[in-house]
Amino acid sequence: MSLGPDEARTVYRGRLIDVTVERWGTREREIVEHPGAVAIVAVDLDGFVTLVRQLREPARRRLVELPAGTAEPGEEPLETARRELREECGLTGGAWRELAAFWTTPGFCRERMHLFAAEGVERGDPDPAEDEALELVRWPLDDVGPHLDEVEDAKTLAGLLLYLHTRA
Amino acid sequence: MSLGPDEARTVYRGRLIDVTVERWGTREREIVEHPGAVAIVAVDLDGFVTLVRQLREPARRRLVELPAGTAEPGEEPLETARRELREECGLTGGAWRELAAFWTTPGFCRERMHLFAAEGVERGDPDPAEDEALELVRWPLDDVGPHLDEVEDAKTLAGLLLYLHTRA
Repeated sequence: MSLGPDEARTVYRGRLIDVTVERWGTREREIVEHPGAVAIVAVDLDGFVTLVRQLREPARRRLVELPAGTAEPGEEPLETARRELREECGLTGGAWRELAAFWTTPGFCRERMHLFAAEGVERGDPDPAEDEALELVRWPLDDVGPHLDEVEDAKTLAGLLLYLHTRA
Repeated sequence: MSLGPDEARTVYRGRLIDVTVERWGTREREIVEHPGAVAIVAVDLDGFVTLVRQLREPARRRLVELPAGTAEPGEEPLETARRELREECGLTGGAWRELAAFWTTPGFCRERMHLFAAEGVERGDPDPAEDEALELVRWPLDDVGPHLDEVEDAKTLAGLLLYLHTRA
């Protein structure tokens, strides 16, 4: 069954996000519109997963996260993921599969995220966008447990744990 | 080190969320302001975890998720969590601990979520808010793996897997 609102109006237009108010029957819902995103559990031949640490202004601190990025118009999720992993981390190649697709915050935001695993990636030089000051972090996957306490990001917890779960 | 923007201005005021534009040095960031939230992995004495299935307008479909809710002003996260679990699921009591705290989408939104485990909860009658049409779902925790394919929500994947990981 296809579900949709009776009415929708845009109440804010921003650079990355818009805000829509939708009427569903007698209820109004305020929804953050987002183009969608990807995140990658990238494991190299040494069994290390690569993460990125960067300033996240909404959190007002530096967070360690899976490599991730926002979909460009017309781009397939797998293309976005390969591009982001190459630009942010300098990682290429590898065997890719989709681990999951999920909403990040389905109560108020339309961001859908595709989560990929890339196994056997090769290390090279990153080519980050100019406004990205990224520090690369490598954790051994077989001993990632103690590092989970450092993770304060939902997709990174979900991604690392789902990867370990599907591998087990 | 305390980090903060050089300037901030509110560009949208909504019902649940606002949008702020912050200037950090030469960079501008568009940030969705959110009061914060909680989610609960609630396990009863029979070893079942309770989830809720409901229409999520941003996803335009019904999703199965951990019980969750938004912080009320002045409320501590644990209070919010106990209240939401009682109202949504009719579950009370149990031994509580915080599993993690994380940002749901730290790239563009200030929503911080506290994730709790509540073990040994007792079943009673829910008292949902009027606009909530919730279906309760119970999964056996020892056999939750096959159900993970049904989950399309980041906090639910992170919460179930983190609970299993910390229990293991």
